[in-house]
Amino acid sequence: MDLSDLNVRVNEIIDDVARNGDHAIKKLTEKFDGIKLDNIKVTEEEIRTACEGIPHKLKKAIDQSLSNIMRFHTSQTAEEKKIETVSGVNCWQRTMPIQKIGLYIPGGSAPLLSTVLMLGAPARLAGCREIILCTPPGKDGKVNDAILYIASLLEIDKIFRVGGAQAIAAMAYGTETIPSVNKIFGPGNQFVTAAKMLVSMDKVAIDMPAGPSEVAIIADGSADPEFIAADLLSQAEHGADSQVLLFTFEERIIEKVIAEIGKQLERLTRKDTAEASLKNSKIILLDNQDEIMEMVNMYAPEHLIIATKDTEVLANRVINAGSVFLGNFTPESAGDYASGTNHTLPTDGWAHAYSGVNMDSFVRKITFQEISREGLKNISDTIITLAEAEGLDAHGNAVSVRINRK
Amino acid sequence: MDLSDLNVRVNEIIDDVARNGDHAIKKLTEKFDGIKLDNIKVTEEEIRTACEGIPHKLKKAIDQSLSNIMRFHTSQTAEEKKIETVSGVNCWQRTMPIQKIGLYIPGGSAPLLSTVLMLGAPARLAGCREIILCTPPGKDGKVNDAILYIASLLEIDKIFRVGGAQAIAAMAYGTETIPSVNKIFGPGNQFVTAAKMLVSMDKVAIDMPAGPSEVAIIADGSADPEFIAADLLSQAEHGADSQVLLFTFEERIIEKVIAEIGKQLERLTRKDTAEASLKNSKIILLDNQDEIMEMVNMYAPEHLIIATKDTEVLANRVINAGSVFLGNFTPESAGDYASGTNHTLPTDGWAHAYSGVNMDSFVRKITFQEISREGLKNISDTIITLAEAEGLDAHGNAVSVRINRK
Repeated sequence: MDLSDLNVRVNEIIDDVARNGDHAIKKLTEKFDGIKLDNIKVTEEEIRTACEGIPHKLKKAIDQSLSNIMRFHTSQTAEEKKIETVSGVNCWQRTMPIQKIGLYIPGGSAPLLSTVLMLGAPARLAGCREIILCTPPGKDGKVNDAILYIASLLEIDKIFRVGGAQAIAAMAYGTETIPSVNKIFGPGNQFVTAAKMLVSMDKVAIDMPAGPSEVAIIADGSADPEFIAADLLSQAEHGADSQVLLFTFEERIIEKVIAEIGKQLERLTRKDTAEASLKNSKIILLDNQDEIMEMVNMYAPEHLIIATKDTEVLANRVINAGSVFLGNFTPESAGDYASGTNHTLPTDGWAHAYSGVNMDSFVRKITFQEISREGLKNISDTIITLAEAEGLDAHGNAVSVRINRK
Repeated sequence: MDLSDLNVRVNEIIDDVARNGDHAIKKLTEKFDGIKLDNIKVTEEEIRTACEGIPHKLKKAIDQSLSNIMRFHTSQTAEEKKIETVSGVNCWQRTMPIQKIGLYIPGGSAPLLSTVLMLGAPARLAGCREIILCTPPGKDGKVNDAILYIASLLEIDKIFRVGGAQAIAAMAYGTETIPSVNKIFGPGNQFVTAAKMLVSMDKVAIDMPAGPSEVAIIADGSADPEFIAADLLSQAEHGADSQVLLFTFEERIIEKVIAEIGKQLERLTRKDTAEASLKNSKIILLDNQDEIMEMVNMYAPEHLIIATKDTEVLANRVINAGSVFLGNFTPESAGDYASGTNHTLPTDGWAHAYSGVNMDSFVRKITFQEISREGLKNISDTIITLAEAEGLDAHGNAVSVRINRK
């Protein structure tokens, strides 16, 4: 993608919001969403009403999803360990929540209510002090009921009906109504993504660079073509720019999978989207597992499904991926919604360098050290010698004045 | 800082290197460093010669520093825990090293050999597959001996005598000689920093945004003015743009610290730099500890020294900081060189959102999940209901085809 043009336009939006605050937010929302905003902030009354309208079945699903996310993310917290590296020299890491978190939840055709769970639950669990949420208003100026229900369940502090680059700018620089945050999370369109990258160079951290979603499936003769087709389609329906890949060395399953895709495609409400995405997608026949693993690790898929006899062997050869799904009964959609793992994952090859969102994403690990007089003596030669080698004698002096003290 | 002009110039350098590879590297090194490069890569012979020239005392200092860094960073690794979130649904995180790491080590007046330790040791410990290092050539076209010695100790795979934005561009996009990497670490001047930010938007991850170094000290009447002055000066000597702050509610120590600064300044070889830095620096007298902790947490110092009677009480009130030093015998220079903690830390307020470099910086945490047929049944309603609420029926279908299978 050539981003320079986009960046210029997004920069204008960011400047406008940074300078003109709420006034710019209202003006841009009218321009892009066609809505004249009275209240930028969603009211308590609106949240109450939304919660009353949620069907019991959906509430139950949200409860189980949340409970599993909490369980898995809780397991990611570590205890503080004090390490005495040398006698009298004690060092430790303390996990501290990032204080102010901003969540961006896209609106549009598919309201991503599960993303509120995936980002809000670990932020809450990490102990973040203030969590705010921005999401674009619908045509009626309202926010999706389920989004409000989940936000209320997670005690999100403030919810704003603002979308696009203007929402990202507001969370980075603050307006009269929307407070600035330390880190912004969440997916979005090109404008949102560009705005996140731009503000991350200046003012706030972001979860990760974002691109279109993707899945790679490794299948052998033991895989079920119906299941594989369903998994490929579940990724393809996300957007026309989604990419789905099937790797195999068993030529005979390819035709069966293609036939199944054709059959299942007919049943889908998002058939057109899935079909468009399939145009960018590939089935790749290779000679053996070695070749497959090499190519998969080079591609570094966001999602990787391993549907083979020896899933464990292949799982142990995964080097670059966001999230890995093992076996015939582990569809990607389990991780998207319910198993407890996070679904905010690195795309577009970024899995080479980035993890998906996890508990680390919401905290900092601050190092502490406490050194006794004896401890300082034990490392004083090292400090003074290295400081001297770097030509920084005041660094050595900070040790000398202490160990020379009678 | 207004960065737009700088970014334009740095973008030109990046484009040049991405297009013209080694040819651009040689041309830019001649332009900026005044060196005609024959070999971009440092030879085995040069490394051997450098190692032979290292004094025993420096080797010993490097050994202790490395051993402590290894000990503290080893304690940061976690074991893999398999979590059964619901019966039959197993999820776990696997820690995987980032495969290709690039280290940037500035040259110039102070060769930062300790930074090779601070970045190379955890990269090695994490199991990164290929670690390369770029550092600008000296006036004689050579790389500092101690840098080569440490790099060889850590088995850094390749060392290149290239500095500036051109080094960052080479590690991001690769040249005929310099391989591209997945993540770039290390401090540098404005050009290096701008280049890191720019390539991080496109191609590789970076450790963190970088700015001038800073220290904040909290002192009460129990603190020693000579020690405080030495700590302030050890930060001030880094650069004219370093910032040193002293917070206290004990007016009587202020004059003593100022007198001590004056006395110690005379002894320093980098007196001019320290004096320039002190011009940006402040001693801040507040009414009480509450006010101090509020301001310190707002400032989010890279280094925080707490030299008070009740260090533990104040340590427990630290919310935003990079690394914290407790008590009268814990100078910042201990953490810079020898205690085992990392000295690559967030500056310029970024401690609100970023940790310093630690083991997490060199790995990704890939999630895995394996679900049994029963397990999938246990979460199927949740997946199907949430997928439906988001209008993504192919996601639900991937579950239905499985649980409906006889």
